[in-house]
Amino acid sequence: MTTLIVLRDGTDEERLGEVVDRLRDAGVPCRSHSATVLSSPSPAARVGAVLAGLPQVAQVSALSGDYPLAARQSAAEGTRVRLGRTLIGGPDVVVIAGPCAVESRDQLLTTAAAVRDAGAQALRAGVFKPRTSPYSFQGLGADGLKLAAEARRETGLPVVSEVLDVRDVELMAGSVDMLQIGARNVQNYPLLREVGASGLPVLLKRGAGTTIDETLMAAEYLLDAGNHQVVLCERGIRSFETGYRFSLDLTAVTVFRERTHLPVIVDPSHAAGRRSRVIPLALAAAAAGADGVIVEVHCDPETARCDAEQALHVADLPALMAGLRPAAAAAGRQLAATPAGASG
Amino acid sequence: MTTLIVLRDGTDEERLGEVVDRLRDAGVPCRSHSATVLSSPSPAARVGAVLAGLPQVAQVSALSGDYPLAARQSAAEGTRVRLGRTLIGGPDVVVIAGPCAVESRDQLLTTAAAVRDAGAQALRAGVFKPRTSPYSFQGLGADGLKLAAEARRETGLPVVSEVLDVRDVELMAGSVDMLQIGARNVQNYPLLREVGASGLPVLLKRGAGTTIDETLMAAEYLLDAGNHQVVLCERGIRSFETGYRFSLDLTAVTVFRERTHLPVIVDPSHAAGRRSRVIPLALAAAAAGADGVIVEVHCDPETARCDAEQALHVADLPALMAGLRPAAAAAGRQLAATPAGASG
Amino acid sequence: MTTLIVLRDGTDEERLGEVVDRLRDAGVPCRSHSATVLSSPSPAARVGAVLAGLPQVAQVSALSGDYPLAARQSAAEGTRVRLGRTLIGGPDVVVIAGPCAVESRDQLLTTAAAVRDAGAQALRAGVFKPRTSPYSFQGLGADGLKLAAEARRETGLPVVSEVLDVRDVELMAGSVDMLQIGARNVQNYPLLREVGASGLPVLLKRGAGTTIDETLMAAEYLLDAGNHQVVLCERGIRSFETGYRFSLDLTAVTVFRERTHLPVIVDPSHAAGRRSRVIPLALAAAAAGADGVIVEVHCDPETARCDAEQALHVADLPALMAGLRPAAAAAGRQLAATPAGASG
Amino acid sequence: MTTLIVLRDGTDEERLGEVVDRLRDAGVPCRSHSATVLSSPSPAARVGAVLAGLPQVAQVSALSGDYPLAARQSAAEGTRVRLGRTLIGGPDVVVIAGPCAVESRDQLLTTAAAVRDAGAQALRAGVFKPRTSPYSFQGLGADGLKLAAEARRETGLPVVSEVLDVRDVELMAGSVDMLQIGARNVQNYPLLREVGASGLPVLLKRGAGTTIDETLMAAEYLLDAGNHQVVLCERGIRSFETGYRFSLDLTAVTVFRERTHLPVIVDPSHAAGRRSRVIPLALAAAAAGADGVIVEVHCDPETARCDAEQALHVADLPALMAGLRPAAAAAGRQLAATPAGASG
Repeated sequence: MTTLIVLRDGTDEERLGEVVDRLRDAGVPCRSHSATVLSSPSPAARVGAVLAGLPQVAQVSALSGDYPLAARQSAAEGTRVRLGRTLIGGPDVVVIAGPCAVESRDQLLTTAAAVRDAGAQALRAGVFKPRTSPYSFQGLGADGLKLAAEARRETGLPVVSEVLDVRDVELMAGSVDMLQIGARNVQNYPLLREVGASGLPVLLKRGAGTTIDETLMAAEYLLDAGNHQVVLCERGIRSFETGYRFSLDLTAVTVFRERTHLPVIVDPSHAAGRRSRVIPLALAAAAAGADGVIVEVHCDPETARCDAEQALHVADLPALMAGLRPAAAAAGRQLAATPAGASG
Repeated sequence: MTTLIVLRDGTDEERLGEVVDRLRDAGVPCRSHSATVLSSPSPAARVGAVLAGLPQVAQVSALSGDYPLAARQSAAEGTRVRLGRTLIGGPDVVVIAGPCAVESRDQLLTTAAAVRDAGAQALRAGVFKPRTSPYSFQGLGADGLKLAAEARRETGLPVVSEVLDVRDVELMAGSVDMLQIGARNVQNYPLLREVGASGLPVLLKRGAGTTIDETLMAAEYLLDAGNHQVVLCERGIRSFETGYRFSLDLTAVTVFRERTHLPVIVDPSHAAGRRSRVIPLALAAAAAGADGVIVEVHCDPETARCDAEQALHVADLPALMAGLRPAAAAAGRQLAATPAGASG
Repeated sequence: MTTLIVLRDGTDEERLGEVVDRLRDAGVPCRSHSATVLSSPSPAARVGAVLAGLPQVAQVSALSGDYPLAARQSAAEGTRVRLGRTLIGGPDVVVIAGPCAVESRDQLLTTAAAVRDAGAQALRAGVFKPRTSPYSFQGLGADGLKLAAEARRETGLPVVSEVLDVRDVELMAGSVDMLQIGARNVQNYPLLREVGASGLPVLLKRGAGTTIDETLMAAEYLLDAGNHQVVLCERGIRSFETGYRFSLDLTAVTVFRERTHLPVIVDPSHAAGRRSRVIPLALAAAAAGADGVIVEVHCDPETARCDAEQALHVADLPALMAGLRPAAAAAGRQLAATPAGASG
Repeated sequence: MTTLIVLRDGTDEERLGEVVDRLRDAGVPCRSHSATVLSSPSPAARVGAVLAGLPQVAQVSALSGDYPLAARQSAAEGTRVRLGRTLIGGPDVVVIAGPCAVESRDQLLTTAAAVRDAGAQALRAGVFKPRTSPYSFQGLGADGLKLAAEARRETGLPVVSEVLDVRDVELMAGSVDMLQIGARNVQNYPLLREVGASGLPVLLKRGAGTTIDETLMAAEYLLDAGNHQVVLCERGIRSFETGYRFSLDLTAVTVFRERTHLPVIVDPSHAAGRRSRVIPLALAAAAAGADGVIVEVHCDPETARCDAEQALHVADLPALMAGLRPAAAAAGRQLAATPAGASG
């Protein structure tokens, strides 16, 4: 448990110092995270008693984990993360689509054009692939990055791509618009710090065995490194059920909404494990209040070199977009407009 | 693994006998479940080879569990279950709402009127309550049944109520329209057989630690007892996440759809554990393709004697219904019309 | 959370009344469970403050669940449950062995003789079998009970057998020495109450999706019905791992030990799912401090009508017993002596 | 599924080529992993048919995952990993003990001396600590490494320490005897490759949300990089139970034993979450057949800067060692002898 202390907007350094002094004099440890956010390991009741009467203190509250910067209360207006011409976390529900892995120029450009034409806002394009087996296709690496850059030029779509290795952050930062930290690396702290320092927008996937609070503390590593452009992604957790790959945790979307100001999108593809389940789950995510979805789509799914069974065909995209419109409306949102420059 | 053998509609006894004989002569064990459904523990390839060329055989396929009568393939048209004037499993998304437990005449009648006025199709009203602690309120029992019957008369809404004890089935059958078998009793086989024999429509909840296939085999107990009026209910499973009560498994809705012809509804209340999460999850369920939702609602949730934190207030019902319209539309369905006789 | 209030042994009614009065006057609700055990839903700090200074109050403490009678603190000396000539919960580690299901007179008597000869203390013998599929062998029922009674006479071993149906409790009470409530029925409250009322020793299995505290509250139903002869059994829980049937939860053995005075034994057979894993897990259970093990054993496992893959062969029993000796010693216990009357 | 092809020891290149040619001619893809180990994604029956009659083929078998080098069948004699003067994976059960984190010279040297005196074989000493919160103590880093080296000189005990960052591998390789890859990094593939290339003995912890087969495929990354000195470590998995930190999965020990030739040790400390549970679980691990245990121990646990509640006191070590003797004997093993140079 962590106690969050939020000061009023515009609090000056002197008034901040007053808070720090008051706590120090009372023997209550605290840490300053920004001009208006402090935290303490002491109980909220104790902190609140010590700070009673100080007008610059807007709020003292208990967090379920140690994530003062990620906490909902520390940014009353939800954070909006720019991705190309789109804002994630605003009134729009955004769609990120593309192949699991970049396999060839033709595959990527064909798929990317279809993604743009369907009206999605960004392209996913994996070039460094984390694979359970060392003998599986590991992605095209640097060559794939060049293809991703070409697809970006051709379609005008911003590109989201996963980074696996701290030594690749700089290389990737030049070619992609958003760095994805995958589920297996959600608690890879050196990578979180390095990506945090890059300043690039980040898509942070929850791990399959990671709790909501652990995910928020992983995001805190990024925020603490000075990077506030962080989007969370629910993509399914481990459970005992074997009828699919992962249990897509849409309840978590509602809990993230309560606990953090960061946007939350949903990846239904990995959980579903089967193409026909992806659209229903994407619609469910939007209806549950997600800020967007990220789906795997391929111009020829049967031949895909990874996750062939769960990739939508490009021809399925219009049905996805058509369903997302009422699903977003159910949640009081709207499907993001087709970006200018797209032909759709 | 079980192999399902489905015969063409209208197959006569002689042609059925031919199938049985062919299998027997080949040493392949089989069991006959209905005029057109048989099963065998032998592999599908073996069964298919033995029956090759018989025109009355419509289909031979492998099931992931031993549930030939519940299997999707055994009833090409999905089953529709009548509840009052409503059909569950047809084009409509239905809403069942009401208090977790009947607590008093006033509480039940006030809540039931609001449920009817909001346009829901049925009333949930627990009178025998399974409680984790022996010292918790266990429901009003037989007295509660009388109140439920009164609420039915007053509102015209059919009543769904949980049965816990094989010795109560007969008593309840006279007062309620649908018997619920709760999550804790999904593998209480004597109860399944007794409820199956009652002939009453059944709402069978998946257990928190029960797989999709185990749930289908529990349904098979009901079907095998001759009762085909069975609705399944997903209500959340156990996972490692502690940010809520249960992981609502909406992927399971898509898997049930593939594996069974029985309707599937979703209870978002128990999983959510918190009122504000219930509507987003109900909308998500509809968008994912559920045939309906069952929600806890109370005229004064703060005073509820069980599950107080997760019950919607009756005043929340219009927002639920308003959201369900586009959510159902996203899934190509429609919200069920207000039943005739309701004032809404 | 429940607050437990334990009075000193020998507290008379007047002094008990003083405690109740003091709480009532302070507006603290309480419930009396026995001559020396009370509980309250109010916080322990509050209860403790109200009762401060009363010499008859031995202890006020917070429980993690609502199980005052099952709580460790309410019976400082651990409970010992008699099964035939054996005490479960004392210094000895006991062994209960036998077939998953009684299949025939020959199978049962052969197996039972081997169980006795190996030096085990009791015979497991299932006659009513809860089966996931309605088409699986459901046990021999009443006929099986007669065979169990014969095996008891022949070997002198007490018999443990599962009860599924409230209507069978009386029938079984005449033929078996300990009623088992299986994992699927751990929250079947009518059955718990009926078995509690029978007064017979009970083996209560934790469910595969049931927490430690839920199991203790299930036990509390038995204790609250006046039956204190309750043995708990850990038999594996659901997890995401698919390399075996269930995750045997030996950490739970240590937690049960902290939270309850009831004995805890372990069933390694169902979790293991494979014969060769059973002995290592049985030894682990003893080393972790379990009060005994219950294992499936069969005179001809390959032909067993249920759980064939996980049953030990009777010829494996000596190796099990030989390993249990040092494993029990590691935990500061000893393997129970061969009961008088056994030939081993 | 992967099919493993194992050739007889001493098969020459020509005979290996014959196998490869035979598969290629039949259109069966294959991969060569070592002089005697090949694998194929084709089914075992198909591979077996193609290779029928070739005398150099010792075995064709199906694996549950893609880990030909880690597979039990590829190294009939179990692998033994040297750690200082000890061999892990031989007849001895080994004990690795030490503080969760190196905090100070005094703390480390005092604890290390007690570890040596108790007769343990190696010292655990974390200097780079992966912490869920960015604000928790992250270890002493390079300064801690110097202290670890000093403790090694003082006690003669080899040192095991966790590596988090690919950029630290070289630095650590000079100061420690075994590199630990922690549970959060079990699928950090760049780290696995870098540690694999270092040639240093590795302790690979299973992740809390990682299956047995995923763990074996992570080990395969190390083996494929040419490093065969790999010890696996079970340390508890995520489950729904909240009575402790993780579900220690001792069944996994038996499954690892079946599937791999790599040694398996158990860390009971993290799962237990409470000091008093650690020894019972360590004994259970030995009784289940683990090759050793790794436990957290501290000279002053109450002041420990991480995992204070679960660290044994150094004074508990003799009880641990005393219990391990009979527990190891139960599994047909023996506690490793005190290393020469230790005073115990």
